[in-house]
Amino acid sequence: MAKTNYPRINAERLWQRHMEMAKLGATAGGGVHRLALGDEDIAAHKLLAEWANLHGFAVELDAIGNMFIRREGGDASLPPVASGSHTDTQPMGGRFDGITGVLAAFEALETIHEAGVETRLPVEAIAWNNEEGPRFTPACMGSATYAGVEPLAEMLAREDADGITMGECVERLKQALPQAGTRALGAPLTSFLEVHIEQGIELETSGNTIGVVTGMQGYRRFAVEVTGDEAHSGTTPRARRKDAFVAATDMTHALREALWDDEDRVRFTIGRFEVLPGGISVVPGKVKFVIDLRHADAEPLKALGDSIPEICQAHAHPCAVTTSEFISQDPMTFPEEMVSRLEAAADRRGYTHQRIYSYAGHDARHMARACPAGMVFIPCWQGISHNEAERAEPEDIAAAAQIIADMLIDLANE
Amino acid sequence: MAKTNYPRINAERLWQRHMEMAKLGATAGGGVHRLALGDEDIAAHKLLAEWANLHGFAVELDAIGNMFIRREGGDASLPPVASGSHTDTQPMGGRFDGITGVLAAFEALETIHEAGVETRLPVEAIAWNNEEGPRFTPACMGSATYAGVEPLAEMLAREDADGITMGECVERLKQALPQAGTRALGAPLTSFLEVHIEQGIELETSGNTIGVVTGMQGYRRFAVEVTGDEAHSGTTPRARRKDAFVAATDMTHALREALWDDEDRVRFTIGRFEVLPGGISVVPGKVKFVIDLRHADAEPLKALGDSIPEICQAHAHPCAVTTSEFISQDPMTFPEEMVSRLEAAADRRGYTHQRIYSYAGHDARHMARACPAGMVFIPCWQGISHNEAERAEPEDIAAAAQIIADMLIDLANE
Repeated sequence: MAKTNYPRINAERLWQRHMEMAKLGATAGGGVHRLALGDEDIAAHKLLAEWANLHGFAVELDAIGNMFIRREGGDASLPPVASGSHTDTQPMGGRFDGITGVLAAFEALETIHEAGVETRLPVEAIAWNNEEGPRFTPACMGSATYAGVEPLAEMLAREDADGITMGECVERLKQALPQAGTRALGAPLTSFLEVHIEQGIELETSGNTIGVVTGMQGYRRFAVEVTGDEAHSGTTPRARRKDAFVAATDMTHALREALWDDEDRVRFTIGRFEVLPGGISVVPGKVKFVIDLRHADAEPLKALGDSIPEICQAHAHPCAVTTSEFISQDPMTFPEEMVSRLEAAADRRGYTHQRIYSYAGHDARHMARACPAGMVFIPCWQGISHNEAERAEPEDIAAAAQIIADMLIDLANE
Repeated sequence: MAKTNYPRINAERLWQRHMEMAKLGATAGGGVHRLALGDEDIAAHKLLAEWANLHGFAVELDAIGNMFIRREGGDASLPPVASGSHTDTQPMGGRFDGITGVLAAFEALETIHEAGVETRLPVEAIAWNNEEGPRFTPACMGSATYAGVEPLAEMLAREDADGITMGECVERLKQALPQAGTRALGAPLTSFLEVHIEQGIELETSGNTIGVVTGMQGYRRFAVEVTGDEAHSGTTPRARRKDAFVAATDMTHALREALWDDEDRVRFTIGRFEVLPGGISVVPGKVKFVIDLRHADAEPLKALGDSIPEICQAHAHPCAVTTSEFISQDPMTFPEEMVSRLEAAADRRGYTHQRIYSYAGHDARHMARACPAGMVFIPCWQGISHNEAERAEPEDIAAAAQIIADMLIDLANE
């Protein structure tokens, strides 16, 4: 730290910006409901753009709706160093998941700018579009499309439950930000860092401020559709029913038996389960559900996932079932060099830290395909996330933003 | 049949009216989606009123939205004899459930009128409001409120999923039928008959045209709400989850074990089961489901129903559960005299018939509290009902309408 100027971030401003953002989609229970590119999420993008304007930072949007806030470097032709995360939330989600990484990156830009630090490379804060996925599948759509993992045209054609396409939403975003320039999809970055709440309890338990993420769990997701026959609940005896609810819950019970492990390392979740037509006095003719399976190791992830269609089939009688895997990602690891540098950055500021594994998926997963990437976790109260009660502490958020500011200065001058 | 004139009903007109009605809420799959007092159901009421106008029949509405079509008798001060059923359907339901009973009654009125048959008592065709119940609970709301089983004010305050009240819907119905007069709620009837498709396979199996209904199954309905805690599906190990879906399906499995009987006489159905918030990557924090339990015998209905709260409680861990019974009806029987007279009416026309028990609930259940009531079933293809594929044959519908016409003439002259 001898020669370079590493300015202090403004912790209070950073916290205030969190509270401002939390108003956009605020729920009665103290959380945030801000689905990807819904009105509230577009408002969040506009607010970011207003803050960017205060410093004259350029704002650019790419074809899938990712937003780039840029502080120019000495050589505008070089690919920027960047940090960021996402502005969208889960339905009835919290105030920190995603937005903390965007605001930490933006705070780093502001801090660097206000201190007059000159960098050779441009420095950017990024908001990846639709990280969460409940409105439009798949999750991490923006970063995955940026990284070439998902095809642009197909992603723009994805529809929400009301038949609105992602393409229409991206158009709305562009119209809401008429001053924004256009960024070529997948334009190179020199490196990428992401700050995120842990969404687990390891840091809370250890008491450390910073978790340097070493890798991410793999996942596979399956859409299951069980088809029986609608019938009158009063007149139809059990022997003559094709009850899709009965068959589907036979499947979910059998899946539990097969997938639950004694070590509690498998993550097996059924979060969406729709029973149709939903009349009190109608034997259900259809059930649609989604299986979310995750594991840190590639081998069990493959074996367990591969067993799912057969298990569903074995319990379908007298209904029919279809199973389709609609997304999968292998477990991944971040480059050791970036992990070590983030540890060193934490040491320089005196923040306690540890290595940590990510059981959630994040945009940095896809960015790691595109450039050297790294990720930092901060503690998350009781591990509660995707929940209105989600909580992170101002000083932990400030520590992470400080590391990002320090790292971006280093990375932008190499 | 010597002295009285018993005119023939017009079977072709009756079938055509079914096909006209089936256009109101027609589904792509050949069924009907016409929820109580939605636009399509109000259109059905208007169409009935137009047909009533052709003959100068009076149309009246009562405070809960029941519709009465009246052919005047010799003494207008006497309570009418009546027949009818309902115009509403289940979501994605069929073309016959309910409307057949209304149209058979209306055909009887037209036939009597066109033949110039004079009756001492007025004769009426009735469309009871909201028999099905998926939009507004409870089912059989119109006839139950007429019979004093449900309180008017409470029923008018019931809301659909969009927060629209039944009271607002009844107002809309009145506005759509400005010529309709007002009928006092619960104004006496001398007797009531209902035609309905069987929704089972007894008649199809026996080959008989007419089923004279002897009684109806009792039922109890329970709303169950399971509360866990929303959590991230990637980061939250099983041991730390309060997964409402896991707890709720433990309950439904245990309920099966307890309620399914070898004789297949118990009707136990879970037709509505909502998982919230419904995100693919969110451990469900809430499940709401409804249990529909029915039985022909009062004793097992009581014992099995009473066991439900305890079973749910026993499988709630680590979630919380509440169970509330929101409606119940004891099994009932129709008066033997009405059953015998309906059998005799079928004999006079040479229709094959049998006694039959109703496993579905119908408006005639409540009418039996208010006056001597009877009910006639006709065959229903493969027993399929509450389904777009629901089917009944024109000649069976005609036979039932003929019995109603003959019976109404007799009952109106006693």
